[in-house]
Amino acid sequence: MKLPETTEWALHCVTALAQVPDEAVSRVQLAEHFALPAPYLSKQLALLVRGGVLSATTGPRGGFRLARPASDITLLDVVEAVDGSRDPYVCREIRQQGRGAAPPGECKDRCILAQKMRDAHDAWRESLQGVTVASLVDTLAASTVARTRASLSRAES
Amino acid sequence: MKLPETTEWALHCVTALAQVPDEAVSRVQLAEHFALPAPYLSKQLALLVRGGVLSATTGPRGGFRLARPASDITLLDVVEAVDGSRDPYVCREIRQQGRGAAPPGECKDRCILAQKMRDAHDAWRESLQGVTVASLVDTLAASTVARTRASLSRAES
Ligand code: FES
Ligand code: FES
Repeated sequence: MKLPETTEWALHCVTALAQVPDEAVSRVQLAEHFALPAPYLSKQLALLVRGGVLSATTGPRGGFRLARPASDITLLDVVEAVDGSRDPYVCREIRQQGRGAAPPGECKDRCILAQKMRDAHDAWRESLQGVTVASLVDTLAASTVARTRASLSRAES
Repeated sequence: MKLPETTEWALHCVTALAQVPDEAVSRVQLAEHFALPAPYLSKQLALLVRGGVLSATTGPRGGFRLARPASDITLLDVVEAVDGSRDPYVCREIRQQGRGAAPPGECKDRCILAQKMRDAHDAWRESLQGVTVASLVDTLAASTVARTRASLSRAES
C-alpha cells in the first residue's frame, strides 16, 4: 500500500498557496518553489482544480489559488483530489469461492472482514478530514511564511 | 493506494483456521477451500508464519494452524504480516527543495504535513488493532462455521 510521491507535491502546493491568499501563482512559480518538474506538476494541479481545491485563471496574471478559504479545505480534500477516494482494500467475494463457498443467500450482508477493513479506511479518512489547511498554516513559523511569500509573490519576484 | 488481492486471502485463511482450532490444515486444503492457486498461496502462508500469526508443522498430518489464540490475533497482525507495516505516505522532504527551501535548522521537527499523514495511518492501524480474529468468528452463523469445518477437517474430508 503506497501513496505516490505526487501526494506530497499536492499537499505542499496547497499549503503554500494558502500562505499567499491574494495571489494567483503560476505553475512555473510553484515548480521552482519546490524544484519539481513543471509538466508533471501540471497534472496534479489540474486534479486539484477538478477536485474543487484550487481554481485556475488564465492570462498574464493568471495562475492557481485556493478555490475556497483554507479553513474549508481539509487534508482529505487534497489527498482525495489527487489520489481518488477508493478504499485501498478491495473485496473480491472470496467467501463465495471454492469448496467452502457460502451460498448467495448467506452473502446479502457485506463480509465482516470487508466491513472491518472499510472501518479502518473510514478512520483514516476521518483523521485527514479533521485537519484543515488553515490549521496547518497556523503552526508555521513566521519566517517560513515570509519565505513562501517572497518566493511566490509576483510583486517581490 | 491499494492493497493487493492477497490481503483478502490472508484475512480469510486466518479466519478459517480460527474455526478449526484443533486441526493443522494443509496448503492444498486451504487452496481448495477458497479456490486459490496453491503456489501463490504458499507465499502468503509463509509470510503469516514469519509474522507470528500462523505456525507450520511438517509431516503427513502437518499443516498450518494459528500460532496463538484467535483472541490474541488482530486484523492488524494479519494485514501487516503480509503487507508490511510501512506508512503508505512517504515524505521526501520537499520542504527542503527548490527556491522556497527551508534551511536544515528549521527542519529538525518532522514536517507538519508528514505528521498529519502519519496520524491518519495510526488511526487506520488502531482501527484494525481493535478487531481480533476471535471477535469476527463470534459473528459468523453456525452454518458458516459448520461448512468451514466440513471443508477443512481431515477427519471429515
Ligand atoms: S469475502 Fe471479501 S473480505 Fe470477505
Ligand atoms: S516535507 Fe515531506 S510532507 Fe512536508
